[in-house]
Amino acid sequence: MERKKINSPAFFIGKGQGDDLISFGSGQPDLPPPKEVFEALNNYQCFKYCLVQGSQKLRDALSTKYEDTTPEQFVITNGASEALDLVLRALYVKGGKVAIPRPYYYSYPHNVRLAHLEVVYYDLVDGKIDIENFKAQAEGCVAVIINSPSNPTGTVQNKETLKACQKFCEEKGVLVISDNVYKDLFYTDENYCVQGPNVITIDSFSKSYSMCGFRVGYLHSWDGDLVEKIVEMKSHTSMNTSIMSQEAAYAAATKVPQGFLDETLKIWRERRNTFYQGMLDLGLDVWNPEGAFYLFPKIKNPSKACNDLYYDYNIITYDGTWFGDDTRLRFSYALDVEKIEIGLKRLKEYLKTIED
Amino acid sequence: MERKKINSPAFFIGKGQGDDLISFGSGQPDLPPPKEVFEALNNYQCFKYCLVQGSQKLRDALSTKYEDTTPEQFVITNGASEALDLVLRALYVKGGKVAIPRPYYYSYPHNVRLAHLEVVYYDLVDGKIDIENFKAQAEGCVAVIINSPSNPTGTVQNKETLKACQKFCEEKGVLVISDNVYKDLFYTDENYCVQGPNVITIDSFSKSYSMCGFRVGYLHSWDGDLVEKIVEMKSHTSMNTSIMSQEAAYAAATKVPQGFLDETLKIWRERRNTFYQGMLDLGLDVWNPEGAFYLFPKIKNPSKACNDLYYDYNIITYDGTWFGDDTRLRFSYALDVEKIEIGLKRLKEYLKTIED
Repeated sequence: MERKKINSPAFFIGKGQGDDLISFGSGQPDLPPPKEVFEALNNYQCFKYCLVQGSQKLRDALSTKYEDTTPEQFVITNGASEALDLVLRALYVKGGKVAIPRPYYYSYPHNVRLAHLEVVYYDLVDGKIDIENFKAQAEGCVAVIINSPSNPTGTVQNKETLKACQKFCEEKGVLVISDNVYKDLFYTDENYCVQGPNVITIDSFSKSYSMCGFRVGYLHSWDGDLVEKIVEMKSHTSMNTSIMSQEAAYAAATKVPQGFLDETLKIWRERRNTFYQGMLDLGLDVWNPEGAFYLFPKIKNPSKACNDLYYDYNIITYDGTWFGDDTRLRFSYALDVEKIEIGLKRLKEYLKTIED
Repeated sequence: MERKKINSPAFFIGKGQGDDLISFGSGQPDLPPPKEVFEALNNYQCFKYCLVQGSQKLRDALSTKYEDTTPEQFVITNGASEALDLVLRALYVKGGKVAIPRPYYYSYPHNVRLAHLEVVYYDLVDGKIDIENFKAQAEGCVAVIINSPSNPTGTVQNKETLKACQKFCEEKGVLVISDNVYKDLFYTDENYCVQGPNVITIDSFSKSYSMCGFRVGYLHSWDGDLVEKIVEMKSHTSMNTSIMSQEAAYAAATKVPQGFLDETLKIWRERRNTFYQGMLDLGLDVWNPEGAFYLFPKIKNPSKACNDLYYDYNIITYDGTWFGDDTRLRFSYALDVEKIEIGLKRLKEYLKTIED
């Protein structure tokens, strides 16, 4: 195989199906969506534009899930990605800055810059927010992004820290954009979602209901003017989110029993346990994921490791450098325990070659 | 009814169904999509991310429809709106200008400004491009937008003019963004789509196949670097376009016989004829639409007319001011001939009240 250097996750798109490749790459759940999602599409017959803000019934359903909210505070978007893009574009001011965690979800710096804003970073310590560093970086920003459970670290921030972040931002007039796409996937006792009048919540049906390809996300804000500005913007940049995808999301929001999420979480937890223990057994320096579905071990020269593991060991991993950490490698465990075990064996062979 | 002043098309969204209101407002075809579109969704089972650029088979199908093109030159987007948004954002340079026709599709100035570019206008004369004015405005721009058949004017630009525009822009290094969403809806002998190495084509399944709510559009460019830049950008701003909507669009592109478009066009032509003749009979100064489905007559004080027609005559029309023309009113004829005739009677009553 010709060894073309791997520069971004895009390199791996479409790879890893139907062959001996083990993909720890994409953040795409392998488990299928609940059956109710597909059932909603049988005999589907609508075709007209719907409200740019999103279908009334889907926003009604969401407002019952978020305390004290109203449907008018939600906007349905083409995934959490578009929600973040719209929010940042709506918050644009000349010279404005947005603070993001580091390591970060790899799109964040791009999203901020695509909105013509400037990126600043608050550095996580072992995947956790350091409140003093957070404050130092957040001050003077238009907004900060918080992501818990986190991609790529797999950490869950603790409630007290999140409350302190929110309070600080509220006092300083900084908006908090809370990216909650992994909110249903946590192995800790609790997962606190940051709340408050200055908080804009972003979420999606992609990870909880395995609906990535459907592209249905949403945002919530208490600020009616901001919501109006975002809807107006979306009427020019994409109009309504696909009506069929919204119908599928409505089924997920209203017809799927909680048991589906519980069962799914059980599977994720089993994989997490196997993979984490396997990495410990290999002597890797890695923290036990508290949420999402990523392991983020330290590894010598992750760019080289990512390339070598792919070309020589038939394993896809994501270089930590893409997430702002050049000491680690990201492994997604969105695949069977058996495949995780095969992958661990190959990883063991690789690790032997880089021992001091 | 309380007379809240009507400021934009958004005012009318969700109005005009199931009551005595006659809506000449929205550019939403009332005719249903071909049955093949819905059939494609029965037993649909996919759920994963697909290529951000768009599904391979849909791009394959498109490349067979556009001469000499390859699938790699297309990007599938959330409607033509997102295609335009992505193209403009990708073309951003500090201080860059984009020329758009005036009257314009009402999103164009917003799209240009949302991409942090500056708008300049080339003025249409009776809905037609004036080549000298076009050249004067286009020179020095990053790009120009051409829209033929045009919303809101209903005009089709002639082939020689379009070739002259393209050639001028090619010589001057200006990109031509050709918004072809109405390309299948024309009543002239021919509809020429502007072509050339400097042309970026934008199109959609919305108008031709009555699939507005599905949100599937696309762009084509000969410039591989630009396509790559757009796909990279879309990987951060929305990821793939809804996989289900793409499946529906694939059915439209490959399974629907040409007869569907011919039959649809026959209906549009009949409506056009009735409505145009009706307006002439009312003594309105209006040109005969050559394409799309809009009539754009002159009217005294169109902002007042739009309000009065809605509140006093139960007719939705769009104020020409929203499209950059404060002397005209836009009427969409995306509704039955019988309703058009009722609307004409009401319009007649209104016109009596504003006679000199």
